[in-house]
Amino acid sequence: MEEGDKMKVGLLGATGYSGAVLYSLLKQHPNITHIDLYGHHKAAEKAEFLDTAIPAYLNEHLQLKEFDAASIMGNDDALFFATPSGVTNKLARPFIENNFPVIDLSGDFRFKDSTTYSKWYNKPAAPDEQLQGACYGLAEFNQLTSHYVANPGCYATATLLALAPLVIDKLIVPDTIIVDAKSGVSGAGKKPSASSHYTFINENAWLYKLNKHQHIPEIMQQLHKWNTAIPAIQFATTLIPITRGIMATIYVKAETGVTLEKLRRSFQKQYQDKKFVRVLADGLPSIKEVVGSNYCDIGFDYNPATNTIIIVSVIDNLMKGAAGQAIQNFNHLFGFSEEAGLPSLPVFP
Amino acid sequence: MEEGDKMKVGLLGATGYSGAVLYSLLKQHPNITHIDLYGHHKAAEKAEFLDTAIPAYLNEHLQLKEFDAASIMGNDDALFFATPSGVTNKLARPFIENNFPVIDLSGDFRFKDSTTYSKWYNKPAAPDEQLQGACYGLAEFNQLTSHYVANPGCYATATLLALAPLVIDKLIVPDTIIVDAKSGVSGAGKKPSASSHYTFINENAWLYKLNKHQHIPEIMQQLHKWNTAIPAIQFATTLIPITRGIMATIYVKAETGVTLEKLRRSFQKQYQDKKFVRVLADGLPSIKEVVGSNYCDIGFDYNPATNTIIIVSVIDNLMKGAAGQAIQNFNHLFGFSEEAGLPSLPVFP
Amino acid sequence: MEEGDKMKVGLLGATGYSGAVLYSLLKQHPNITHIDLYGHHKAAEKAEFLDTAIPAYLNEHLQLKEFDAASIMGNDDALFFATPSGVTNKLARPFIENNFPVIDLSGDFRFKDSTTYSKWYNKPAAPDEQLQGACYGLAEFNQLTSHYVANPGCYATATLLALAPLVIDKLIVPDTIIVDAKSGVSGAGKKPSASSHYTFINENAWLYKLNKHQHIPEIMQQLHKWNTAIPAIQFATTLIPITRGIMATIYVKAETGVTLEKLRRSFQKQYQDKKFVRVLADGLPSIKEVVGSNYCDIGFDYNPATNTIIIVSVIDNLMKGAAGQAIQNFNHLFGFSEEAGLPSLPVFP
Amino acid sequence: MEEGDKMKVGLLGATGYSGAVLYSLLKQHPNITHIDLYGHHKAAEKAEFLDTAIPAYLNEHLQLKEFDAASIMGNDDALFFATPSGVTNKLARPFIENNFPVIDLSGDFRFKDSTTYSKWYNKPAAPDEQLQGACYGLAEFNQLTSHYVANPGCYATATLLALAPLVIDKLIVPDTIIVDAKSGVSGAGKKPSASSHYTFINENAWLYKLNKHQHIPEIMQQLHKWNTAIPAIQFATTLIPITRGIMATIYVKAETGVTLEKLRRSFQKQYQDKKFVRVLADGLPSIKEVVGSNYCDIGFDYNPATNTIIIVSVIDNLMKGAAGQAIQNFNHLFGFSEEAGLPSLPVFP
Repeated sequence: MEEGDKMKVGLLGATGYSGAVLYSLLKQHPNITHIDLYGHHKAAEKAEFLDTAIPAYLNEHLQLKEFDAASIMGNDDALFFATPSGVTNKLARPFIENNFPVIDLSGDFRFKDSTTYSKWYNKPAAPDEQLQGACYGLAEFNQLTSHYVANPGCYATATLLALAPLVIDKLIVPDTIIVDAKSGVSGAGKKPSASSHYTFINENAWLYKLNKHQHIPEIMQQLHKWNTAIPAIQFATTLIPITRGIMATIYVKAETGVTLEKLRRSFQKQYQDKKFVRVLADGLPSIKEVVGSNYCDIGFDYNPATNTIIIVSVIDNLMKGAAGQAIQNFNHLFGFSEEAGLPSLPVFP
Repeated sequence: MEEGDKMKVGLLGATGYSGAVLYSLLKQHPNITHIDLYGHHKAAEKAEFLDTAIPAYLNEHLQLKEFDAASIMGNDDALFFATPSGVTNKLARPFIENNFPVIDLSGDFRFKDSTTYSKWYNKPAAPDEQLQGACYGLAEFNQLTSHYVANPGCYATATLLALAPLVIDKLIVPDTIIVDAKSGVSGAGKKPSASSHYTFINENAWLYKLNKHQHIPEIMQQLHKWNTAIPAIQFATTLIPITRGIMATIYVKAETGVTLEKLRRSFQKQYQDKKFVRVLADGLPSIKEVVGSNYCDIGFDYNPATNTIIIVSVIDNLMKGAAGQAIQNFNHLFGFSEEAGLPSLPVFP
Repeated sequence: MEEGDKMKVGLLGATGYSGAVLYSLLKQHPNITHIDLYGHHKAAEKAEFLDTAIPAYLNEHLQLKEFDAASIMGNDDALFFATPSGVTNKLARPFIENNFPVIDLSGDFRFKDSTTYSKWYNKPAAPDEQLQGACYGLAEFNQLTSHYVANPGCYATATLLALAPLVIDKLIVPDTIIVDAKSGVSGAGKKPSASSHYTFINENAWLYKLNKHQHIPEIMQQLHKWNTAIPAIQFATTLIPITRGIMATIYVKAETGVTLEKLRRSFQKQYQDKKFVRVLADGLPSIKEVVGSNYCDIGFDYNPATNTIIIVSVIDNLMKGAAGQAIQNFNHLFGFSEEAGLPSLPVFP
Repeated sequence: MEEGDKMKVGLLGATGYSGAVLYSLLKQHPNITHIDLYGHHKAAEKAEFLDTAIPAYLNEHLQLKEFDAASIMGNDDALFFATPSGVTNKLARPFIENNFPVIDLSGDFRFKDSTTYSKWYNKPAAPDEQLQGACYGLAEFNQLTSHYVANPGCYATATLLALAPLVIDKLIVPDTIIVDAKSGVSGAGKKPSASSHYTFINENAWLYKLNKHQHIPEIMQQLHKWNTAIPAIQFATTLIPITRGIMATIYVKAETGVTLEKLRRSFQKQYQDKKFVRVLADGLPSIKEVVGSNYCDIGFDYNPATNTIIIVSVIDNLMKGAAGQAIQNFNHLFGFSEEAGLPSLPVFP
């Protein structure tokens, strides 16, 4: 496509957090002229819940059209799924079969084998042949090999971008990766629950799903593309009282001969041409530097006393960790400028 | 009762916020030796929800006994109800008929007539004869005329203590009372909902139940005891992102001849002997001064340019607005020191 | 100017909160090709403080040029001041004398008489002849009668937009206006202080500057343009633990014969053609609906029991209350589309 | 001393956060009849700052007596220092020389050698002979061998209690200890700064003092008492937007043959008789379970895939991490019940 080309896109799931952010981005994308919002079978229930919980602006636009694959492929040039897991594995088939451009923000098509999905998500997976028809769109690394793009998970994005250079350059001891990630509450979605209740998580911190988080296999699958020697990772996620943002703090042992300068060169080599990964020359990033933007900021240090490398990456879980990266993948898919429709500055203060 | 007397008490509703705070206070009350926790019919469902939402310490103690009026009256010396509205109107009868000491934190027995309750709570009220058997325990003002004490609501407490001196001394124009109350999220209870979801109320403020809050008639009923000339009040409640605390900001027009000094004397006269109401010599109180304590701090000012008196009162909605005042009423009922079991300092910082 | 015209602009004060937001907006404004950042005399001290407090992205751009009026008028097509009060009254003269386009976000040029400024700001005012050379840019109401635009204060904007229709249509009793405003902490600026310390204001609410807030005279000056019968307003500001946003809750007595329908028509008449004021058909707005946008959302209700009208307006204090309205005024001044450079959706969630 | 004994105590530093909490605890301690508050040389400046930042209740009590060692030893039975680092190393000598009971909450007397202090605190240390006169009071482990008790730091307490059993029982590989600690803002004290500004840390997370935190040498010194084989630890502290509380998340590699059951037995053996350390039978603790209490709650798990043990400990940094442990040490010093004056339940919700 050319820069000046204009497109119509569809969106299923605008009422979730990722979907709402995605809708915002699509509205200001210079190459998009029209957005169709679609509703799936639970639309009716959801609308009621949204009455008190969603900004007026979205309610106004909640003119949901009935989800129908054939008419979507007729009316729109591309489709975004911003749905919970377990939805697109039932809806994706016609789009895959017709090579229709789809960006799927859910976890349903991130794996190459169905057993991994069904084990970690505890749900039936899409058939293996459909899974083969999708590609995993870690935007800074993966070429889009099909029109059905599985957009990476938020924790996976923060973790993989932090680890990639050192894993690719084999600067770390493979069996020593420890990820201590902190995340805001929006990551858990809009459905009210005990752990998203204000009085529970306000003034609190809570480590959940230890060694059971569904982003672990997604991270392993991608790490293995870079280095098959990595046996497993230690991965913990702690909910902290913020709305948006992830900080992944990563500890790894350095291979012999590693210096701070070698680390710096490894990061620079990998990211010097990447628009949305900023490697700090010095110091470690804080979450607020990236919230509202599509950036992943990365800082790192080396402690000779413990031979430990620490890497800190921060992203906005709903931007680079979801809707922002989806736009980036959309831009890649259609040959638009990678930055089209993506804000260049964070929300500050 | 004597200072040294020791008692056994029962509590229904320890798993709610008010109940949890009440349980904390009962545990450290010098005249209480034993606490029986009771469960009503929904105990089973609740227990499951609590798994992730309540501190381990309470789960340990969740040895709930089956609620049975006869055995409670046999085993305990007093009973606390920390239940949502619509529960005690079904359970209170045997206790009222037997003059058994009860402190009821719910709204079910605060009114003298059943039609007010059923109109504002939209639920069936207790029979009128039972309502007559209860007394409204605004601790600084009302003598306990029966053994069944209806503990006031949180907004009602903050509003009434702020207005009482000036209403009693007829220093304000009766039809000009405007209450703008701000409240923390714990006031809405533990049940997850769209409006208590962290991402909704964090970084937000939300005015809810305008002119429809169920504490309005409770405030009017008590104001009328002091001055029947007050026709109505304007009352708004805004949810702000804090866990505990209420600030009631009250605006009223001054009667002719009112001065700041007259206001000061009115407040002092009413509260100089009251342990739990602190009238500031100067300035206005902030919520954090009282959270964790049973104090109501009150500041006020007079603006000659608009002939407006402003009164600001702050309480901890779960202490002076619920469990703390319940203890105060308990102490009154049994002749203990008014401060027994109540912390003298707030949680700070 | 034409839609396609491109401009160079200068900005003094990019390191404050309003300035940082303004810089963000200028960067994405379709008619601005270049932004010069200027530093005034305290630049050096400030830079040090900013080291830990400002996002990396701004530090990168902190290539401050020395502030010099002549070279600014030579290099740029317009200038923005995002400075604290007491700065531009020393810097404005050459720009005013040369009719150079300036948007001043500070309070220094909002008044027509110097005594009001010096009384409420407790600082020397600009000379009266300079004050006459500036115009007060309440964007929905005031024609820009000069090239030096005094951008309104945040509280003033929220209050005036809420009151304007009813004041203009004489639907309210003039001496009954009560404003209870709630504000986020960013309104107090970046300088660390006891009241902006996290542990003070977190889990707190604090009413400050009662009847002494410097936005009061600004509100009165504008109200008098609409209706000279208004003698004074009662105005209180409460700091709440959020970063951005203002909610102005306004109580006024209704004139005889006012109905909810009359109120609705008054608001619609005034705002139906205004892009950035949204009058809710029903209900009251919450702050989060507008944060990140230039919208002022307004809801209202009428309580016959107290003959009281309540109006609730919400704005983002750094957008519609500062940088956003500055862009709006800039667009008006140069004849660009009113929405140019302003996001159409809030940050959500 | 006997249970019934009553004492008079002095406190220097009541206006800081730890001091304010300590004052609260002292006020309700059953064996303390009188508290003298002392001011040191900066008292005057501080008082001014406190005007807007401290609850009215403390201002009322700010009847500071001049600090004078001789009169303190004449009037009081014990002294608490709740001062920043660099104060008590100038004030401690007479108390040490006279074997006067002191609990020092600052870092000045925690080390056995002065070079460690001066290196990590970047200040002159107390003379070595004075340092020898103090003992490090990690309350669950260390016998008080002198009357001058150096109360442990907050991070050190959370970390050491989590590691102690496994280090003592040699269940972990000595050179693999990684501590990722999260802390509330009160830990940084009351002085306003760029990083404690509400708008900086609200909605943010910030890793600070990487490998440079002054609690590292204190942790090492104590670990070496248990096991000299530990060469160093990897230690990071992340500020999160809460007022009180620390969560220490610790990752270590397991020695051969370690099982979850062995870990459980190790923790139980060490803590089954300890009142203030609660080892969770299952799951991991959240911060809110302990805020307001003196408890350290500990949970742990073992991941065979990575041979990694994870230990999570939570404390209230101002209680178990400062004032609460100070009371515990005071109780030990005088033979009172260990729980005297310490609340048995957290602040909840």
